[in-house]
Formats: sequence, C-alpha cells, structure tokens
Amino acid sequence: MGQISELLQCAPLQPAQAAIAITGVAALDEAGPGDLSILSSPRYLKQFASTAAAAVLVDRAIKVPTPADRTIPLLVDNAEMAMARVLQLIAPPVPQPPAGVDPTARVDPTARLGDAVAVGPFCVVGARSSLGSGTILHAGVFIGDDVAIGRDCRIFPHVVVRERITIGDRVIIHANSVLGTDGFGYRWDGARHAKIPQIGTVIVEDDVEIGSCACIDRAKFGATRVGRGSKIDNLVQIAHNVTVGPHCVITALVGVAGTVKLGAGVAIGGGASIRDGVQLGDGALVAGCAGVATDVAPKTAVSGIPAIAHRQNLRELNALGRLTELLPQINQLLDTLKQPKEK
Amino acid sequence: MGQISELLQCAPLQPAQAAIAITGVAALDEAGPGDLSILSSPRYLKQFASTAAAAVLVDRAIKVPTPADRTIPLLVDNAEMAMARVLQLIAPPVPQPPAGVDPTARVDPTARLGDAVAVGPFCVVGARSSLGSGTILHAGVFIGDDVAIGRDCRIFPHVVVRERITIGDRVIIHANSVLGTDGFGYRWDGARHAKIPQIGTVIVEDDVEIGSCACIDRAKFGATRVGRGSKIDNLVQIAHNVTVGPHCVITALVGVAGTVKLGAGVAIGGGASIRDGVQLGDGALVAGCAGVATDVAPKTAVSGIPAIAHRQNLRELNALGRLTELLPQINQLLDTLKQPKEK
Amino acid sequence: MGQISELLQCAPLQPAQAAIAITGVAALDEAGPGDLSILSSPRYLKQFASTAAAAVLVDRAIKVPTPADRTIPLLVDNAEMAMARVLQLIAPPVPQPPAGVDPTARVDPTARLGDAVAVGPFCVVGARSSLGSGTILHAGVFIGDDVAIGRDCRIFPHVVVRERITIGDRVIIHANSVLGTDGFGYRWDGARHAKIPQIGTVIVEDDVEIGSCACIDRAKFGATRVGRGSKIDNLVQIAHNVTVGPHCVITALVGVAGTVKLGAGVAIGGGASIRDGVQLGDGALVAGCAGVATDVAPKTAVSGIPAIAHRQNLRELNALGRLTELLPQINQLLDTLKQPKEK
Repeated sequence: MGQISELLQCAPLQPAQAAIAITGVAALDEAGPGDLSILSSPRYLKQFASTAAAAVLVDRAIKVPTPADRTIPLLVDNAEMAMARVLQLIAPPVPQPPAGVDPTARVDPTARLGDAVAVGPFCVVGARSSLGSGTILHAGVFIGDDVAIGRDCRIFPHVVVRERITIGDRVIIHANSVLGTDGFGYRWDGARHAKIPQIGTVIVEDDVEIGSCACIDRAKFGATRVGRGSKIDNLVQIAHNVTVGPHCVITALVGVAGTVKLGAGVAIGGGASIRDGVQLGDGALVAGCAGVATDVAPKTAVSGIPAIAHRQNLRELNALGRLTELLPQINQLLDTLKQPKEK
Repeated sequence: MGQISELLQCAPLQPAQAAIAITGVAALDEAGPGDLSILSSPRYLKQFASTAAAAVLVDRAIKVPTPADRTIPLLVDNAEMAMARVLQLIAPPVPQPPAGVDPTARVDPTARLGDAVAVGPFCVVGARSSLGSGTILHAGVFIGDDVAIGRDCRIFPHVVVRERITIGDRVIIHANSVLGTDGFGYRWDGARHAKIPQIGTVIVEDDVEIGSCACIDRAKFGATRVGRGSKIDNLVQIAHNVTVGPHCVITALVGVAGTVKLGAGVAIGGGASIRDGVQLGDGALVAGCAGVATDVAPKTAVSGIPAIAHRQNLRELNALGRLTELLPQINQLLDTLKQPKEK
Repeated sequence: MGQISELLQCAPLQPAQAAIAITGVAALDEAGPGDLSILSSPRYLKQFASTAAAAVLVDRAIKVPTPADRTIPLLVDNAEMAMARVLQLIAPPVPQPPAGVDPTARVDPTARLGDAVAVGPFCVVGARSSLGSGTILHAGVFIGDDVAIGRDCRIFPHVVVRERITIGDRVIIHANSVLGTDGFGYRWDGARHAKIPQIGTVIVEDDVEIGSCACIDRAKFGATRVGRGSKIDNLVQIAHNVTVGPHCVITALVGVAGTVKLGAGVAIGGGASIRDGVQLGDGALVAGCAGVATDVAPKTAVSGIPAIAHRQNLRELNALGRLTELLPQINQLLDTLKQPKEK
C-alpha cells in the first residue's frame, strides 16, 4: 500500500500499514481484505461503514466516521482522479499479437509497415496502405487500399477501415467498428432513390478513441472529420461530412447526421440525435435523449425533443406537471365564464 | 396434423383431419393449404375468414365464425404459447460447424476445450481460455486470453469476447456482438480527456441470450454483470459496471449507462436510455423511447423523457392536448382581466 | 470543365474556360483552384463570394453576385442533382477482390457461383448457397447454408448472412451488418423466458442498400421483408416479421419492432422507434426521434413521443412554451377567484 500512498502523496502511513499488499480494486460492498476501494460520494457512507476493504480512497470533502480497524482511509483531494492514477499503476497489459505479420494475414506487397507493427491473424491490409511504428492490428481487422494509419494505434478485432482513409497517431478503435462506409445519400429520380456517389474520405486525428460497433461514414466529397482527442462511445453514428471538433465526447447510441459541425469540447449524452446541417458551438452540452434540430450556441446546454435551452426545458416540464393539477380548475373557470354569456 | 393436435391437447380430430400433413407455418393471409396459422387477436378475424390455411390455432377467448371447410380451427387456451410449442416441434436445426477445431482456426495450445466443442473456420481462441463441453464457436469468433466459457453455448459468427471474461452455460451470443470493450471513462486533465484504465471484467450468467451488434463493456474495476436468464436484443449498449439482474428483457437500441443496477425481471422497451447510476427495482417496466434519469421503484412503469410514472405521463400528454384547445380562451380571459386594470 | 458543362447541359463555356481541368470536388470554403464546388442554398452566399473554386454549380433560383474572375458559375436547375451526376462521372472505382475464389476462403462444394463472382479472403459460403453473376463478397463475409443471393450484389467486409435467406439483385450490404439473427421472441413459462424458435427467413428484394452494423432479424415464421429499392442506414434494427415496402428510407439508429408494416415510400428520420404491430401507410413520414405507437395514415407526417400528427405536435410544443409564460398569471387568477369564496 506504500506505493499507492506515495503515488497519491497521502499522509504517511505507519510501516505496518504501508506493508499491506493491495491485490485488487473493488466497490465498497464487494471489496475483500486485499482490496482498495473508493468513497467519492456521501451516498455510499453506509457501504463505507461496513466495507471489508484494506483501504479506501476518500474524498477529503466527505466527512467520514472512523472506519473499522481493518480499513485504512486514504484522504485525497479527488478520489475519482486518485483512483484513475492507481488503476494506471496496476492495470494489466492488454494482450496483443506479437510484432510482425501473422502468417495467416493478407498484407498487400505495396503496403508499408513501420517498426514494431503487429498484424494479427486473418487481417487484410490493402494496396499502398501504411501503418506507423508501433501500431497494432488485432485479429481480423480489414484495412482497405490507400489507407494511412499513424503510430501507436490500437485497432481491435474485426474493425473495418475502408479505402482512402487517414488515421492519426495513438488512435484506438474498438472491435467491430466501421470507418468509411458510403454516406447515406440518394436523390429520387422519379422512379427510384438513385445513389449519390460518396467519393470523399474520413480523417481521424491524433488521440481519438472510438468504441465498438460505431460507424463513421465517408464524405460525399471532402472529408468527415473527427478532431484530435475526441472520444466516441459504442454504437455511435457519425454521418457523411460531419466535423467533430477536438476534445468532444459523444456517448453511446448518439446519431450525428450529415454535415453537422461540432465545435471544440462539445459533449453529447447517450441516445441523442443531431439533425443534419446543425452547428454546435464550442463547449455546447447536449443532454441524453435530446433531438437537436437547430444550432446551439457555445457553452449552452440543451435538452428535450426538439432540444431547447435546458433551463427552459425544465421550466416547461415543471409547467406541464402543474397543468395536470390546474386543468380541472381552469376548465371549471372557463365553463363558469361561458354560462352567463349563454343566458 | 394429429401430432400437433396431440401436442397441444386439443379436442380430438377426425381421422381424415389428423392425417393432413402440415408442411409449414404462415400468417393467415399468406398461408397455403399445407400451412398452420394462428389467430391470437380479434383484429385479424377478417383474414381468418378468408385464409387458405389447413388449420389455425385459435385463442379460445375469441369468438370465431365457422371457417370454410378447408380450414380446421384448433382451439387452445393461449394461441401464442401453443404456436411456440409447435415451432419447437418443427424448427429446422441451425447449421453449425462440426465438433472439433477447424484447421484454419487459431487455438492457443494452452486453451482447454471440453467434449464435443466445435471451433469454426477463422476463429481465434486465446491463451488459457476454456470452452465447456458442447460449446460451439461459429466462423470468425474471437475469444481473447483468459476467457472462461461454460457448456453448450452458441457463439455466432464474428463475435468478439475480449480478455478475462466469464460466460456461463447455455449462453447464446449472436453475430458481431462485442463483450469486454473498455468502459467509456476519461478524466479531463486540463489539456485532454485522459483515459481511465478499465481493468475489470464482464460476467454473463447462465441462459443469457445476447443479440447482434450488442456491446457489453468491461468494468472500470469489478465486473459488468448480466444476470441469469436475461435477454438482450440487437444493438444494445451495456456500459461499464452495470448490473443486469436475472430474467431482464432489454429491447433493441437501448442504452444502459455506467453503474446502473437493474433488479430481477426488469423490462426495457426499444430505444430507451438509462442514465448512469440509476437503480431500477425488481419488475420495473420502462416504456420504449423513455429516458430514465432517476431511480424507479419495483414493479413501477415509467415513460417519457425524463421518465416519470407512466400514468402521470399519460395525464400530462392528455393535458397538453387539451391545452392547445383551451389556450385561445385562456389568452382571451387573461386579456379581459388585464384591460379593466389598465383603464 | 467542358465535359462537366456538357453533361449538365449548361450554357456554352468559352474555350479557355472549357479547357480548365477539374481535379476534385470540395465545399465552397475548402475548394482550391482545381475544384468544383456547389451553391444550393442562399445560406452559403458568403462562402460563395470568397471561394477559390474553379467553378461552382449554382441553383438557378439563387440570385448570385458576379463572382471573382477565378470562379465560373455553372447555372443549373437543381444543383444537388447536378452534383450527383458529376460525382457519378468522377467517382473512383471501389477496390474489390478479383473475380474468383480467394484461396483462403471456405466455399462449400455444393455452393453455386455465377460468372465473375468474387469471393474475398477469409469468406465462408455455406452448403447449397448460390451467388449470382457479378456478385462480390469482400473479405471475411459469412454466408450460411441455403442462402440465395442474386446478381451484381456488393457485400462488404464481415457481413453475416445466416442460413436460408434470400437476397435479390444489385443489393449492397455494408460492413459488419447481420441478416437473419433469430427474432427476439420469448414466452415466460413461470420460471424463465423460454425461447420461441424463429424458423422464418429474411427476404431482401432488388436494389436495396443496407448500411453498416444494421440488423435484420429472421421471422418467427414466414419472412421479414425489405422491399425493392429501399435504403436502410447504419445501426438500424429491423425486427422479426417486419415488412418494409418498396422505396422506403430508414435513417440511422431507427428501431422497427416486430410485425410492423411499412407501405411504399415511407421515410423514417434518425433515432425514431416504431412499436410492434404498427402499420404505416404509403408515403408516411416519421420525424427523427419520434416514437410511433399507433398506425399512421398514408402521406401523413408524425413526430413526438408518442408520435402524433406533426402539425399538432408543433401546436403542443408552442402551447407549452406559452404556458411557462402564462402560468404565473393563471395561478394568480385562480388564487384571486378562490379567495372571495373562502371569505
């Protein structure tokens, strides 16, 4: 425990305490005598009182009772952040294919592979594509022709990257996601929906992470772009010609329609939809389940379907609740006023 | 038809009727003279009258006219349940790879395979992983290192099960789903969203069925858990550290955010979202499209965004409809009251 | 540029203009001196004024200032449609595996392959399945037993088509989609959700296009059907026994529940859900994020959760906004009226 305490610059432990071996991390109610746990909200004070954890990271702001002797509280400024640092310390390495090209993989002779690149079993790498040093393709990844992937990327099993796409450095793409599908574009020619060719590309900048089963479509022309450092969760749809600014956070099951522009640091909650062509300013916040149909100013929070200022949405929801109480009185009042007129 | 009639314990058929061969099952308006059909709602009485089906399973509760001679009604207590039993009787077997390891599959020498395990073409099974007797991996399944899978599981093509995950017995996972992606967790360090290591696991208990393109993320620490007998549809997101209780039903395109706890027998309709940290009691019902942002008591039905008691939601929707009718009168009334004061 | 001008039947260019080489297509604000761009809405007049494009397709209806000498406006009746034709002219071919069966592919000896069929690396084609002339399976596609696929189809990497499914001619299925997963059907038998066998099929008619990570489930019995010429976007769920009529357009993240019937030319916006059993008439329009719980008449637009006539939804949203303004006055009025009575 000494190593953890030092890492977090906690108050010094007694030697006996420092010598305790921490072998795992667990929630308060699941932790055993070798575990480290966390108390980041007063909501869990009850579980804190009865935990069997060897030690607990405690937010300094929370007033805690002296725990049982078996548990050592480690006071820190921000328990969540402290835990992130501990996890970094103890995280087991993610298994990955060894450097080199697996004998079953199909790598085109014109592809260029940097130092220490690993290409796993059953991968395909197309003509003229390049993989930067240290990049790892897990099993069954498909890389089309003319794709450029930077250094130290991690591409998990069965990801599909179609032709003519550019991916930066340190990008992580989780299993079964697809980059570069044709954008969803047709024009009705009187008899059928004729396909509009989607001849553009996708550009994914440095340090982006993309979840599983996410789809980022190829632009009609030009590029669909995901800005550096942005994080995209599982099952997200990014349509053609979207621009995601840097450092955005897009949660699971969000749909971002064609030509939408997200500024820097935009955050979108799970299940929300953004209508095509909409622009969201820097730091805009979209609540989960929202349906955004109009532009959102910078640093503005919106919610609801269609999305409006979050504060106004709360007012409306509150008014609607009140309305159900007032409606009988309003009805009665209007009836009363009507009757005299009818006499 | 005799076999079906016996299975369902219907009233005895005449020998000529019992001898009719049933060669398929079809909807009333699509059935031909060798087909069995079903009438489970009075909504379809018209189609019943003109069906060409050889026989129809009819809910005893529905008053039916005598059908044309060509069609025999088989009266049963519950037509849907009776049909399920008939389908079980006539279901063709699902094709699957033969027992043994396909020569193209890559199975680590340290993996342990039970009796009658089948590993299809282009599969990968990682180090120290185990597959229980009778478990079948269809083509292109990826099983990472240190994964434990129980007996008689069916894992369909291209499923990805990442490292250190535990799956029980008789679990079915449909094509292209992903278990064990890193949970979506970051902390802003002043310059970027720093990744919080996700060192936990996923535990899928016995008799769970998971649809296609579903994602069940690895816990930050501890486990994301899907309880025994729960059923998860296609395109569902189960985030890190979620606990799904036993016998839950989660319909397509539902997002369950981090650390949510579902009790036993919770049912969630299609397209709904559950906010992180929310708890749903045993038997809670979430309507399709709902956005659940607060805890739900056991056996309570909620709907709307944000979700509220379903009954209250209906009241509010009704009040809102009334409001559009009353608004002109309310406006007029308020104007009338204002004017005198202004004089 | 002469070739483009001719294709679009624009007013004749001067020889010097006709000789300019167009080497790409780009948005007004990203175009360089070799690019063609487009102005289809007055919204972008500002970008038009400062574009560096060599030429711009301009909707004849838009009043444009004379652009800088460097840019030639090409006036057309419909700029979007004109651009679609230009894209068709210049679209680079999509790379695809060469005709024949890749040596790594696993094609059952009983499968029948038409002329010029291409089967990419790591594909599986099951027993008794057939691929029509000119059909292309990209890498890692799985085709189960007894599948019939028509001519000139394009099946992108890692698509899974389960057993006994029928696909027409010129169908495109994008990467990682799944056809033929068991429909999501169970009955509670008192102790558990017992699986209802799903013995039906999926029929995809001619000229359908299906996006990435989309799921089209097998019918309980009979068929789930996607009508000719319909277009389905990424991450869409089509449940068992759904009928999608011809020429429908279903946008990303839409869920269509069991037994829903869509007429011809139905359009569904992103993120919408359709409840099981609902029928949508020909030409019905469903707004994005809508939750459709009742039948929709032909050519009717609906929106909201639950979805109602779009016009009525707008009235209600407007009334709700007004309510937040009026509520204080209504409260005051009701209080005033109450007080005298209490005296």
